[in-house]
Amino acid sequence: MSSDSTAPSPGNAPPPLLDLTIDNITPNTIRINSQSPDARLTYLMARLVTHLHDFARETRLSTDEWMKAIEFLIGCGKICSDVRNEFILLSDVLGLSLLVDNINHPKPPQGTEGSVLGPFHTHDAPILPNGSSMTSDPLGEPMLAICTVKDTSGKPIEGVHIDIWETDSSGHYDVQHSDRNEPSERCVMISDSEGKFWFKGLKPVPYPIPNDGPVGKLLGRLKRHCWRPAHVHFMFGKEGWDKLITALYLRGDPYETSDAVFGVKKSLVIDLDKVDKETAEKYGVKQGSWLLKHDFVLTTEEETEKLRDQLATEALAKLGLNLKLVDHLPVPDL
Amino acid sequence: MSSDSTAPSPGNAPPPLLDLTIDNITPNTIRINSQSPDARLTYLMARLVTHLHDFARETRLSTDEWMKAIEFLIGCGKICSDVRNEFILLSDVLGLSLLVDNINHPKPPQGTEGSVLGPFHTHDAPILPNGSSMTSDPLGEPMLAICTVKDTSGKPIEGVHIDIWETDSSGHYDVQHSDRNEPSERCVMISDSEGKFWFKGLKPVPYPIPNDGPVGKLLGRLKRHCWRPAHVHFMFGKEGWDKLITALYLRGDPYETSDAVFGVKKSLVIDLDKVDKETAEKYGVKQGSWLLKHDFVLTTEEETEKLRDQLATEALAKLGLNLKLVDHLPVPDL
Repeated sequence: MSSDSTAPSPGNAPPPLLDLTIDNITPNTIRINSQSPDARLTYLMARLVTHLHDFARETRLSTDEWMKAIEFLIGCGKICSDVRNEFILLSDVLGLSLLVDNINHPKPPQGTEGSVLGPFHTHDAPILPNGSSMTSDPLGEPMLAICTVKDTSGKPIEGVHIDIWETDSSGHYDVQHSDRNEPSERCVMISDSEGKFWFKGLKPVPYPIPNDGPVGKLLGRLKRHCWRPAHVHFMFGKEGWDKLITALYLRGDPYETSDAVFGVKKSLVIDLDKVDKETAEKYGVKQGSWLLKHDFVLTTEEETEKLRDQLATEALAKLGLNLKLVDHLPVPDL
Repeated sequence: MSSDSTAPSPGNAPPPLLDLTIDNITPNTIRINSQSPDARLTYLMARLVTHLHDFARETRLSTDEWMKAIEFLIGCGKICSDVRNEFILLSDVLGLSLLVDNINHPKPPQGTEGSVLGPFHTHDAPILPNGSSMTSDPLGEPMLAICTVKDTSGKPIEGVHIDIWETDSSGHYDVQHSDRNEPSERCVMISDSEGKFWFKGLKPVPYPIPNDGPVGKLLGRLKRHCWRPAHVHFMFGKEGWDKLITALYLRGDPYETSDAVFGVKKSLVIDLDKVDKETAEKYGVKQGSWLLKHDFVLTTEEETEKLRDQLATEALAKLGLNLKLVDHLPVPDL
């Protein structure tokens, strides 16, 4: 036998797959999915298959229900387009998006908390100089935003790219208008040497998430409303810093405590102010228009990674697992 | 207050949804999904959300992995068409289809076992008189099939509609040919007063499941092959009898014990015979061509329902649940 033999290890070949039953289908499916050298993929598939099968067994899922689920997924796929992602929307309304964000971007007490990305971020927003207007909507209530971005010790961070996006006064993102020619109500700002960035936008309004598709129909059947409270999205990116996806919400919004996608956190709920005379002159806006002031705090990638690993280890220990098992799947007995 | 007040019951209004964390997102999502009077829907959603969130927590699912899953689902949706159902294919290769069939159509020892439906059944197959040919493919090896359908006591069942479908000699179902004008290699037969039905088809060949889409790519990454062993599909329907979806598999097929969709059961593996002189004359086929003989046994809807309920009760008891809990969701503490 040559020394570089690549014959599969003896224990790895799946056993004969015959006479699979309600009880033995799960370990058999896991076994046949365990032939790749990619241990992470193997682990993910093992947990996925276990949960999928347990769900069917626990609920005694009927053939009709299974078929309705298949048709629901096809419906979600059909309505997806370059500017519509029904699967992200589904993940949002099932609380999965918030959970995944919380797992991946844990924050120390000083750090600004994250919120859901949602399906309306685009990559074509223009980089605008500080002070610019990001809106072309004449009907909304003008709002000046003056913000800073600092580290956990209070030191300003210069050169952070900040994606900012919100709806127009009708509660629609630009991509929801079929006649969209160019980005609107969205821009990228860059923080200055004092960590400051400022722009002219609109006082945000509450809006329904797209509810003309399968996800909207599901919410209807669940007797849930499809509204999000008024908010402005922010996404902060700079090398070495943990990407912060968040949003600021207006206090007193009718949907403040019942956001359809679970994004609101108390620390992200803010009060708007009114622009005084001095500020109006300095920033070239009308006195008495809305003013949003907020200080964002970023954490470094290193801080976040340490915290994420610590929380993951604690969580897996609680489950009776340990980190080793995540990398090396225990081959189930058959 | 009017006597027909439809105010929601007090305990049913969801609590404020704020500051949701890795730990409390699940009961909160379940609570907001529990406002419908449809107890079954509420239960299904509660178990779905629990498993979905547990999966993310146990695997510490990364944002990239989450996004890849979203893209995978979009890809499955995109490739779906009237003649291609990628989500059924996904359910098949994950063992879910077989599991759901086993849950819903349990058989007593005498009954013919079920197998996976697969994505290639159509509703446009012609009803043909017994003895007809269901194929227009001149390249395959001709096969005569002589079958019966009886009850568990051995009594013939007359008037059963039997959907029969298989691939052509190239291993493709008719719907996989873009120039399909009419059904081929598929028909519906009706059993006669002796429970007999017979037809001319092709000796089935092994074939790969459609592997040019996301599911095929997934199998590739998992180092799984995408082949199904040679088989003929049968579906039996008559009022009062449990619908039997099954298939017969050829013994000795290279994929007999590694079916990509887990459908093979020992009781469904058969040996083909050769047509003798007498049979050739009687059925108008060539002596020496292939002969498939099989006796199918149906169970009544009543028998199946009783067995299904018994197995469900046993299974739920094993899980520490009872049937009452399936209908009435316990509202989780928050």
